[in-house]
Amino acid sequence: MKFQIDKTDGNARACTIQTAHSTIQTPIFMPVGTVGSVKSLDAKDVMEEVGAKIILGNTYHLYLRPGDETIRHFGGLHGFTKFPYSFLTDSGGFQAFSLSDISKADQNGITFKSHIDGSTHYFTPEKVLDIQYNFNSDIMMILDDLVALPATKERIALSIQRTTDWAKRAIAYHLRKKAEGIGTHQNIFAIIQGGTDQEFRRISANELCELPFDGFAIGGLSVGEANREMYDTVEFVTPLMPTHKPRYLMGVGTPEDLVENVERGVDMFDCVMPTRNARNGSLFTSFGKISIKNAKFALDENPIDPECDCLTCKHYSRGYLHHLYRAKELTYFRLASIHNLHYYLHLMAQMREAILQGSFAAFKAEFYRKRGN
Amino acid sequence: MKFQIDKTDGNARACTIQTAHSTIQTPIFMPVGTVGSVKSLDAKDVMEEVGAKIILGNTYHLYLRPGDETIRHFGGLHGFTKFPYSFLTDSGGFQAFSLSDISKADQNGITFKSHIDGSTHYFTPEKVLDIQYNFNSDIMMILDDLVALPATKERIALSIQRTTDWAKRAIAYHLRKKAEGIGTHQNIFAIIQGGTDQEFRRISANELCELPFDGFAIGGLSVGEANREMYDTVEFVTPLMPTHKPRYLMGVGTPEDLVENVERGVDMFDCVMPTRNARNGSLFTSFGKISIKNAKFALDENPIDPECDCLTCKHYSRGYLHHLYRAKELTYFRLASIHNLHYYLHLMAQMREAILQGSFAAFKAEFYRKRGN
Repeated sequence: MKFQIDKTDGNARACTIQTAHSTIQTPIFMPVGTVGSVKSLDAKDVMEEVGAKIILGNTYHLYLRPGDETIRHFGGLHGFTKFPYSFLTDSGGFQAFSLSDISKADQNGITFKSHIDGSTHYFTPEKVLDIQYNFNSDIMMILDDLVALPATKERIALSIQRTTDWAKRAIAYHLRKKAEGIGTHQNIFAIIQGGTDQEFRRISANELCELPFDGFAIGGLSVGEANREMYDTVEFVTPLMPTHKPRYLMGVGTPEDLVENVERGVDMFDCVMPTRNARNGSLFTSFGKISIKNAKFALDENPIDPECDCLTCKHYSRGYLHHLYRAKELTYFRLASIHNLHYYLHLMAQMREAILQGSFAAFKAEFYRKRGN
Repeated sequence: MKFQIDKTDGNARACTIQTAHSTIQTPIFMPVGTVGSVKSLDAKDVMEEVGAKIILGNTYHLYLRPGDETIRHFGGLHGFTKFPYSFLTDSGGFQAFSLSDISKADQNGITFKSHIDGSTHYFTPEKVLDIQYNFNSDIMMILDDLVALPATKERIALSIQRTTDWAKRAIAYHLRKKAEGIGTHQNIFAIIQGGTDQEFRRISANELCELPFDGFAIGGLSVGEANREMYDTVEFVTPLMPTHKPRYLMGVGTPEDLVENVERGVDMFDCVMPTRNARNGSLFTSFGKISIKNAKFALDENPIDPECDCLTCKHYSRGYLHHLYRAKELTYFRLASIHNLHYYLHLMAQMREAILQGSFAAFKAEFYRKRGN
């Protein structure tokens, strides 16, 4: 991975990441393609209508179905899904922890039962990399140890320690594998944990950032804490991260979260919000969210957002989308998902442009002014 | 509507229909867009990926939701859905009869309860045209009187008589409306009934075909009768229909049905089969149907049909589609629907080409040879 900082504006950064499969201009939002498709879209949509150069796949889901060996058979995620640009895949740990009926961490990894068929599986730091080698992911996330909150200080301290131990095992394994010619074009990111506790965050960041990872993520946020706590934690952690490597805030968030965290020095984001909200009738616009199911849109001939030039806004009215939503038509899901993802990626592109122009503060003020706050 | 016969080959016909919104080359299959969208596709897909120049809308559904006045507000179906080519809309009678909990015909029309909210409505021959004027449909079907089978000869005779009476009321109403400047670019088709009984079919065809409709449909088939009975009925009825007007076989059918009935002189078809089967995992190919859910496709890198050049076959493997189907991904429904509709429309285009070349019999033999029967 080649990484270059094109421009900074305060703590906000405009960078370029070059992987084996695409050139990614940051700040960037990665659409979530959980089981190998961004829900309701095909690869052509994601390239042409959304304009994404990188998407996220979930290792837990893809490992269970269709299985990493099947994906390897098709030439990795790129060959299987025919999305030719970059894939970032998570470690599977978060879903093993949250989706499985039973999951249990020990010092070597996580035991869990499949939510599909109840079969038992074991993820270790090495195993989740082997899976991601089969995926041929451009960016692989390592296994971290998650704890259910509330937890004792002792359990959180153990989690931080274990996350560091697993990170050391992961990077050692990856360097060994690369020496064997495996995953030579693949990159590996570590995940800083510690909740909203500054001391834990400092320990985790310091221990991980001295290891030769290709990039670093901030995990364990956007799990129900107040926005202010998230922003403060990011503001505390980013200065502890290397300047010359990508910074990825996992599972975040709302448009406001993106603006606030770009301002605090984050380069990469992912979240199910734009696609999930689209399916629930919640659409993002430059003037805030609208609920397309609202009866007031029944006769509305305007596009979702008059400032938007996505496929959906170029062709269809709020009234038609309102009808498709109410009639539960499959067509609705794709048109709404294209709009919301286009909104997210366009917002990131606008932020990049503002950073390049040195006008991020003005952009942020205008962003909030338009939505009336 | 301008109608021209370009070529005949036996009883098979290649014709051109020119409506206010498109030029339609027959024989043609009309994708079904029940509530204003071909399920899982948007108008751009229907135009560019399927290549349809005419689609069907269901009056019963569109009248109940969003309502014909709403559609009129958006400039008719074309303005509402943004599909710019032709729409044929049915009369609503079939769905009022089959989807409603309670429906009852009297000599003036059909009383029924909405399947959505239980509200009571009354369709008359005039009312269903008023609805279709609001839709601005290019081809309007008139109300006919359907009977639940089995029925007595007396009830069927009444149905035929009532269908003729309603047809006379419909054409009189339409001519009056056109004189008032309403629906001047819209066309109106009558529907020949009579089940598989030749005497009833002869009476119905003779009574209707002497009225100045723009085209004629054969209704009441594909309702569970043997294929042979359907083919024999069509073979019996088409010679009773005017040569110089379009012939439309409603609700038909399988690829084999299309080939057999084109051979018997039918110009137009519609059916939910390609889209509904797609959603259920059943995909059409030049060598017959395949069930994509079958485990044997899990590692299959071939497209659905190597002879097909649809979006789906150009980009995606059977293995990927198998995975999307099993994971119940929304993306699957669109890719499968595009393929099946493309298959249907391509089959019609091949038949037209064969008719123009005078080689329909050879085409038909090859069609069956490829599927091994």
